Amino acid sequence: MNLASQKFELSIRVYIEDTDIGGIVYYANYLKFFERARTEFVRSIGFELRGGYGDGISYVVHSLDLRYFKPAKLDQILRVTAAIKKVGKAHLDFVQKVLDESGDVLVEGNVRVACVNLESGRPRVLPPALVQCLTE
Amino acid sequence: MNLASQKFELSIRVYIEDTDIGGIVYYANYLKFFERARTEFVRSIGFELRGGYGDGISYVVHSLDLRYFKPAKLDQILRVTAAIKKVGKAHLDFVQKVLDESGDVLVEGNVRVACVNLESGRPRVLPPALVQCLTE
Amino acid sequence: MNLASQKFELSIRVYIEDTDIGGIVYYANYLKFFERARTEFVRSIGFELRGGYGDGISYVVHSLDLRYFKPAKLDQILRVTAAIKKVGKAHLDFVQKVLDESGDVLVEGNVRVACVNLESGRPRVLPPALVQCLTE
Amino acid sequence: MNLASQKFELSIRVYIEDTDIGGIVYYANYLKFFERARTEFVRSIGFELRGGYGDGISYVVHSLDLRYFKPAKLDQILRVTAAIKKVGKAHLDFVQKVLDESGDVLVEGNVRVACVNLESGRPRVLPPALVQCLTE
Repeated sequence: MNLASQKFELSIRVYIEDTDIGGIVYYANYLKFFERARTEFVRSIGFELRGGYGDGISYVVHSLDLRYFKPAKLDQILRVTAAIKKVGKAHLDFVQKVLDESGDVLVEGNVRVACVNLESGRPRVLPPALVQCLTE
Repeated sequence: MNLASQKFELSIRVYIEDTDIGGIVYYANYLKFFERARTEFVRSIGFELRGGYGDGISYVVHSLDLRYFKPAKLDQILRVTAAIKKVGKAHLDFVQKVLDESGDVLVEGNVRVACVNLESGRPRVLPPALVQCLTE
Repeated sequence: MNLASQKFELSIRVYIEDTDIGGIVYYANYLKFFERARTEFVRSIGFELRGGYGDGISYVVHSLDLRYFKPAKLDQILRVTAAIKKVGKAHLDFVQKVLDESGDVLVEGNVRVACVNLESGRPRVLPPALVQCLTE
Repeated sequence: MNLASQKFELSIRVYIEDTDIGGIVYYANYLKFFERARTEFVRSIGFELRGGYGDGISYVVHSLDLRYFKPAKLDQILRVTAAIKKVGKAHLDFVQKVLDESGDVLVEGNVRVACVNLESGRPRVLPPALVQCLTE
């Protein structure tokens, strides 16, 4: 299994909508940035995390942890990364970061995304094509 | 037709999530407050604007205008109003306001909500029961 | 005055954060898209709508109107435009659109942005350099 | 030290703004709910997490973890709790839950809030009055 190459980086500009009264990005909004990066990552290898509705499959966030190191600010261009840490039977473990242009880590987190049956909401095995694509 | 009594007021606290770097409520977020007030208004007379899915009916915002007079600030308790201005064949016209505790108008707007067929998204007549409830 | 060339178009991807239970972009979120386009527009001519804090100047939305024609959907790439319709003494009038990739207009609106004194929040004349840049 | 009594519960209605295309509350939005509950909790004992600006003190989220058990849905009334798990020298550890009306836990998390100097952003000791209030 070669996960080393399974990395992705998305460039995101900070807009006023992202900020709060503290003059920095509101703490919940980094999860939006993370989801954008995961989505584009999976899209880049030919899949859709929410578009697989035709197959009766969906993906939901199971759990996450986040550590905030430095605040992101208005107008900054952020580098938001998504990398696969582990491909489970029914879930994917991502490690994700928000970096500024100089490469300093602003936020770092781990996100477990579970594959579920669209109707029942119950866990199901990842589609073999996705697993193959992520691990070869 | 007696629309005079068809008014509703919802009390809403401003949280950090609502603010932006300017230290005031972000301009798009008043539309969230407006929708909360419309939703509770319609709920208060026994209907659900989005809950009518069982009947194949949905409601979408068709158009709106907004005027910002004074900014709302963190921790303020706002009074958000919704009143029916007109009951059309396939739409409802709301007039809505955000007031502070002293009664000053911070934001005022008009919102037209259209009744649509859930499947096709096309306009359809308002449910007679809703019309009766709003006009008697 | 030549405003004809003062147009800007920003490409925006629709992510899950932008959608609501109706499976379409939540009606308030188009205002976020509009602000991103205005911000990048003004940045593209060398100014910052919120970055002028050093000069004691800020910009706030004074009023707006919106018309929703067709809903934007998950994963779509939208073209969000901002054009100056009028340069007032103390405000800018923008006309803005959201189009899909085939050029259909999904949302259209007018937004008046007022120039205010950062401390007092009171209206003040637009910076001459900005006016010159927008009108030459 | 008696932290047992330091619990708070806030009732929150789920509105359309909170949902996503999956028909459930968007995963980042629970952090908004959590912050509302923390804010009201601290307010209920006579403090303001962001209002202490006059004292040159602010509070920022340092780190968090979240576990999603069951999705919250439109129109549900949620019970969002905040309890102090630990009062550190320069931080507060909260444990927070989102429960439905029957008492099922939908989301559970731990949030560390750090006390910082408003100007420098650097950690500083918690105000003694707050510590006393939380521990007696």
